[in-house]
Amino acid sequence: MEDLPPRALAALETLLRLRRDVRRFRLDPLPADRVAHLLRLTALAPSVGLSQPTRLVLVEDPARREAVRASFRRCNAEALAAAQPERRAAYAGLKLAGLDRAPVHVAVFSVADPAQGHGLGRHTMPETLDYSAVLAIHTLWLAACADGIGLGWVSILDPAEIRAALDVPADWRFVAYLCLGLPEREDDVPELERRGWERRRPAVILRR
Amino acid sequence: MEDLPPRALAALETLLRLRRDVRRFRLDPLPADRVAHLLRLTALAPSVGLSQPTRLVLVEDPARREAVRASFRRCNAEALAAAQPERRAAYAGLKLAGLDRAPVHVAVFSVADPAQGHGLGRHTMPETLDYSAVLAIHTLWLAACADGIGLGWVSILDPAEIRAALDVPADWRFVAYLCLGLPEREDDVPELERRGWERRRPAVILRR
Repeated sequence: MEDLPPRALAALETLLRLRRDVRRFRLDPLPADRVAHLLRLTALAPSVGLSQPTRLVLVEDPARREAVRASFRRCNAEALAAAQPERRAAYAGLKLAGLDRAPVHVAVFSVADPAQGHGLGRHTMPETLDYSAVLAIHTLWLAACADGIGLGWVSILDPAEIRAALDVPADWRFVAYLCLGLPEREDDVPELERRGWERRRPAVILRR
Repeated sequence: MEDLPPRALAALETLLRLRRDVRRFRLDPLPADRVAHLLRLTALAPSVGLSQPTRLVLVEDPARREAVRASFRRCNAEALAAAQPERRAAYAGLKLAGLDRAPVHVAVFSVADPAQGHGLGRHTMPETLDYSAVLAIHTLWLAACADGIGLGWVSILDPAEIRAALDVPADWRFVAYLCLGLPEREDDVPELERRGWERRRPAVILRR
């Protein structure tokens, strides 16, 4: 049995504090073997009943990437129009995606009813399949950060449009679209806090 | 700006390999300050638009714990009845919850429409609020593992029954029920693999 590395919790805490949702990327390509290694690490993530429903799609085709950007532009314009009026100018000033420059794009899906796992653990909560994909995403996010690579999660997209743009099987649910690349700058403070959109608060813990 | 610890990726990989979904706990209590520290670290998890919708409930009341165990027994009996016939005996032999012995129980919820974050990033994908709670859970899971504490995620529960048992606000969605404690044993191989229920496979990566 492997041992915990010394000061494992302190090292993890540093990583948790350094992790950012990166929107500003350098144009430098990422070495393919480093990306492949990070993607493979997602197999270590927990999944309900060991069902491993996560499917990763490396999006490389320029036309498909443009279809994703088009979905983002449409959804972002709608979200801007739906934003609280006093927040609209601030919203318009936020950089909400790194789709223009990130060298690596990864779309993440979960299989709706995988044979693997034999249904264990998801009878009353089938949403745990999507949650399993989220656990894989967080695994990738932390591993990328530990490797000096930035990751940004884009959720301002229409799931049906992304599924069509990437031509995936009918039973794959769209969970997230991720941009990876070298971060353009490093910052102690997340952009949403720097721009006064929102601030991080302590965890909410109740007793019952 | 803090620096990455040396060999940050290798340390994280060890942690990812050591993490287990723990079902067998020692009865020893956990020091309250260690538990509180781990719970507070969830505030560092990513959340959509920095909305931090996660709500943690430390379940301590014996009657409430018994209501959770009763929900598990009901749901587990139903899942057993619904299992593939050739799998039923194997299912009955699995230990699927540590609710009987774990000294610390934490229920995790997400707020349906939090004011924090001002709606950012979830216009087309409101499920990213539940995903944010999952990111907090994975943060807690890895931190607990790094601190030598085991965590088990129980999903064989009826969300409505858990919400009623814990008397939470109407707009809280139930995401997960977690058991924490010192693991009774450590093992290189997850129980589902040891018992031949399922085996871990490589990540599925496609190109488009």
